[in-house]
Amino acid sequence: MIKDVPDAGGQQSSGTGTRVRTIDLNSDMGESYGLYKIGADEEVIKYITSANIGCGYHGGDPGTIRRTIAIAKAHGVGVGAHFGYPDLLGFGRRYMEVKPADLKDYVTYQMGAVMAFAKTGGVQLTHVKPHGALYMRSLDDLVTAQAIAEAVAELDPTLLVYTLSGSAMAEAAQAAGLGVVSEFFADRGMQPDGQVKMFGYDVTDVGGGAESIAARTVEVVTNGQVTAMDGSRVPVEARTVCVHSDTPGAARYLRAICEALAAAGVQGRPVAHQVV
Amino acid sequence: MIKDVPDAGGQQSSGTGTRVRTIDLNSDMGESYGLYKIGADEEVIKYITSANIGCGYHGGDPGTIRRTIAIAKAHGVGVGAHFGYPDLLGFGRRYMEVKPADLKDYVTYQMGAVMAFAKTGGVQLTHVKPHGALYMRSLDDLVTAQAIAEAVAELDPTLLVYTLSGSAMAEAAQAAGLGVVSEFFADRGMQPDGQVKMFGYDVTDVGGGAESIAARTVEVVTNGQVTAMDGSRVPVEARTVCVHSDTPGAARYLRAICEALAAAGVQGRPVAHQVV
Amino acid sequence: MIKDVPDAGGQQSSGTGTRVRTIDLNSDMGESYGLYKIGADEEVIKYITSANIGCGYHGGDPGTIRRTIAIAKAHGVGVGAHFGYPDLLGFGRRYMEVKPADLKDYVTYQMGAVMAFAKTGGVQLTHVKPHGALYMRSLDDLVTAQAIAEAVAELDPTLLVYTLSGSAMAEAAQAAGLGVVSEFFADRGMQPDGQVKMFGYDVTDVGGGAESIAARTVEVVTNGQVTAMDGSRVPVEARTVCVHSDTPGAARYLRAICEALAAAGVQGRPVAHQVV
Amino acid sequence: MIKDVPDAGGQQSSGTGTRVRTIDLNSDMGESYGLYKIGADEEVIKYITSANIGCGYHGGDPGTIRRTIAIAKAHGVGVGAHFGYPDLLGFGRRYMEVKPADLKDYVTYQMGAVMAFAKTGGVQLTHVKPHGALYMRSLDDLVTAQAIAEAVAELDPTLLVYTLSGSAMAEAAQAAGLGVVSEFFADRGMQPDGQVKMFGYDVTDVGGGAESIAARTVEVVTNGQVTAMDGSRVPVEARTVCVHSDTPGAARYLRAICEALAAAGVQGRPVAHQVV
Repeated sequence: MIKDVPDAGGQQSSGTGTRVRTIDLNSDMGESYGLYKIGADEEVIKYITSANIGCGYHGGDPGTIRRTIAIAKAHGVGVGAHFGYPDLLGFGRRYMEVKPADLKDYVTYQMGAVMAFAKTGGVQLTHVKPHGALYMRSLDDLVTAQAIAEAVAELDPTLLVYTLSGSAMAEAAQAAGLGVVSEFFADRGMQPDGQVKMFGYDVTDVGGGAESIAARTVEVVTNGQVTAMDGSRVPVEARTVCVHSDTPGAARYLRAICEALAAAGVQGRPVAHQVV
Repeated sequence: MIKDVPDAGGQQSSGTGTRVRTIDLNSDMGESYGLYKIGADEEVIKYITSANIGCGYHGGDPGTIRRTIAIAKAHGVGVGAHFGYPDLLGFGRRYMEVKPADLKDYVTYQMGAVMAFAKTGGVQLTHVKPHGALYMRSLDDLVTAQAIAEAVAELDPTLLVYTLSGSAMAEAAQAAGLGVVSEFFADRGMQPDGQVKMFGYDVTDVGGGAESIAARTVEVVTNGQVTAMDGSRVPVEARTVCVHSDTPGAARYLRAICEALAAAGVQGRPVAHQVV
Repeated sequence: MIKDVPDAGGQQSSGTGTRVRTIDLNSDMGESYGLYKIGADEEVIKYITSANIGCGYHGGDPGTIRRTIAIAKAHGVGVGAHFGYPDLLGFGRRYMEVKPADLKDYVTYQMGAVMAFAKTGGVQLTHVKPHGALYMRSLDDLVTAQAIAEAVAELDPTLLVYTLSGSAMAEAAQAAGLGVVSEFFADRGMQPDGQVKMFGYDVTDVGGGAESIAARTVEVVTNGQVTAMDGSRVPVEARTVCVHSDTPGAARYLRAICEALAAAGVQGRPVAHQVV
Repeated sequence: MIKDVPDAGGQQSSGTGTRVRTIDLNSDMGESYGLYKIGADEEVIKYITSANIGCGYHGGDPGTIRRTIAIAKAHGVGVGAHFGYPDLLGFGRRYMEVKPADLKDYVTYQMGAVMAFAKTGGVQLTHVKPHGALYMRSLDDLVTAQAIAEAVAELDPTLLVYTLSGSAMAEAAQAAGLGVVSEFFADRGMQPDGQVKMFGYDVTDVGGGAESIAARTVEVVTNGQVTAMDGSRVPVEARTVCVHSDTPGAARYLRAICEALAAAGVQGRPVAHQVV
């Protein structure tokens, strides 16, 4: 697996002096709730380098958070807080008109809960990533993005923010002094204007199978561009690649991506451990 | 007010060399939820030295936690996590048969959420206190008490546990290496066997008014005993005195207690700042 | 009180042959949740003729529904289902991007729950009224309004829908074959274009006190017009007048309205019992 | 399938004058919540004659209730309300110390919600069955059982109550004038004293596979007895047989049961349609 490539101690150079390319692979997980199970976390964790962990508002519960952090630690995977709107019934995928001050508090609350388990689990949070409708809203709405960025910066300014390059979220995070990690969605189609087609997932949007998902990921990582849904070429900046753990076949896709990246000489590595 | 007595810089000695008695006064607060308000927090905070803050499971919400920590800080009041069963509809006052491992996770989650606001609010948690049915259960059930103690000890072993002297909670906390703060309930009657009559609150149980509540508190603090509901005398060990913020007249009772304690030469001080 | 005027057996004519004017007075209530109390229901119920009862999604709980129906029955007040978005934390006052099919199901669920208590309480639901953000959304968004109207019409087509005259909700209700009851908000200011200023309540918007609120209500009921916030005159069609039970002073306002209406010869009567 | 045997129009006699045995097969379903799916409802529904539908407190949501009623109707399966404690996080499997008056209200609320969908879905509720910890509690605790029975009797006294023969629930239901349907759990082991081993499900408790589950069910239906976990024979009275839809292999077990019952000349039929 891609992340099994031995870490060169931060040096990240091959014997021949060539700089080794690295990429982070992230997935949302820890979103089960009580007896309700969602996502193939135990499978997916094998292939990723960063786990975004549900915090209990849109999904996730205390025991799930603890267990997810434990398997992440066991697999050497970085952990982040994956906070969302307080809407378990809608799994956080519905926009809610939350006041910015309230949203900021919701984010602080959720991060704090996950941080407690990170501490008792012996790891440190490396990043955050908004979930679902909050993620989408933070791309376009600066007020939402600023509420998130303020909450993160006040609690721990070393946390990295996963979002799309050029988004309001990226802008607000940078303004708040936070590091931004640009994200590419391997399992979602790209529109010609560079917008991700996040909902209404269709495997044909990404070429129809694991092979094409892997190929386009390699293309993004090595060439910084991808083929959009209309066949045009779109530039993409990405330091992390996301596959949703509840995408049917997620583990299979991730395995194909890992193999293709390895074949292209790219190592998987949590962004927090990458030399920027 | 009792806590306005100038702090002698930790020295706690009067000019004449007499040791000054101190006592902590605590109250549960921060238990409002959204538009639903409960407790006279703004009034009560003036008279106490430690605030036990709802964590969102039985009551409390992110904004309420933040605001409660802010007023506690403004009044120089210590803050603690006041966690309960996940039962907003029952306000955490109903026993729930939660498995110990789950309970431990619920406690970790709730403490983490409050800790995040403590950090962004510029204060440090000093203590914890279980709420309602969880408090009662932890007095008698060692398994419950141990689950709580483990969660606290793993997250922050410097946190003090408020509970009744001689309870299972006290035993489990000590076994986990945690400091225990013995508690006296000024607004609840005492049974001849030393058991607190927690529910079915009746002002006649405590003598019928603010004056008698104040007098019995002074008696506990200065003499270590109290008059039980049957008129007998019962020994009480207490380093902190609790008045529930949702007891009707809580602020009035607390004012009377503060005045009576001051008249008896007792200073209010958060336990965390007391010399033991 | 206005509703104490003896009911003329449906005839609604005075002895002199003059038709007696009637008006319905409605208020949202039954929105408490567990230990959390909101609204002065016991006071407000004395002055109204129709109660809109929270269904447990934005507020209200089973016991509250039962008790509210009991006091409504005792006061001869009609009962309706007051359904909202599933957002207890936001009290249903935040827009949620719920799919129409889901919204329809949420409305059915909430109506059913209240209907069960109506049946066991020996009354029959007379009407429905969306709550908070759902009410506002249903004024402008026909898709939302249609989802509501379909749910109501499928469950019980005799239920009347309370809404603003000329709204999308009125249109959708009529299209679904439902009766519509036009509503005037006595405690909310009117904008010159006839739009209600629903949020950011300010008593000066309605003239500064109980007297002006009563006067403008009489004006609406007897003349079909009201003075807007800029002093202009706006036509208003209203068969029911609403005062929010959580408006500070609600009972006082309602008493003033009742007295002023009685003085103007208008009887309070549930819409369901009015001759249209 | 067992229930495909043509219904003899209520006559239930074979051509030769022999009375045809019938049995009801029930399963808990409709317990998914939002994006969270639980239970193989679409498969299980093919083999049962009565569906117990989650009401939203321990599991189930409005859309799930509607869809479950629709598939039940399509398969000619009777529908019942399957109410539980308000504990989604614990899936209603944890005892909660709810006051009887509150419990009664919770039951009314949940039944009402499901009844609304039954009405809009064109079916009529035939029965009720408490869920999880509430089911277990109602077996032994008469106060709990009475609260349930009162709620059911007040809302609709024609509803049948599914429970164990000889339980407190059976006693309370009969006292309230309700019909009782005795239940046998095909997928749970029987203890020598006739107690069901409800939790800690182990397939070896029931003989190790679909064949033994089917055989013991036939034994109960035709001979009124079953082999307990210690090999002894225990008498069982059962008018309905339950297989939990979330038991792994539920549909497979049900198919085997149906085939074995058919081979033994037993017809599946909703209890409500059986001649008693």
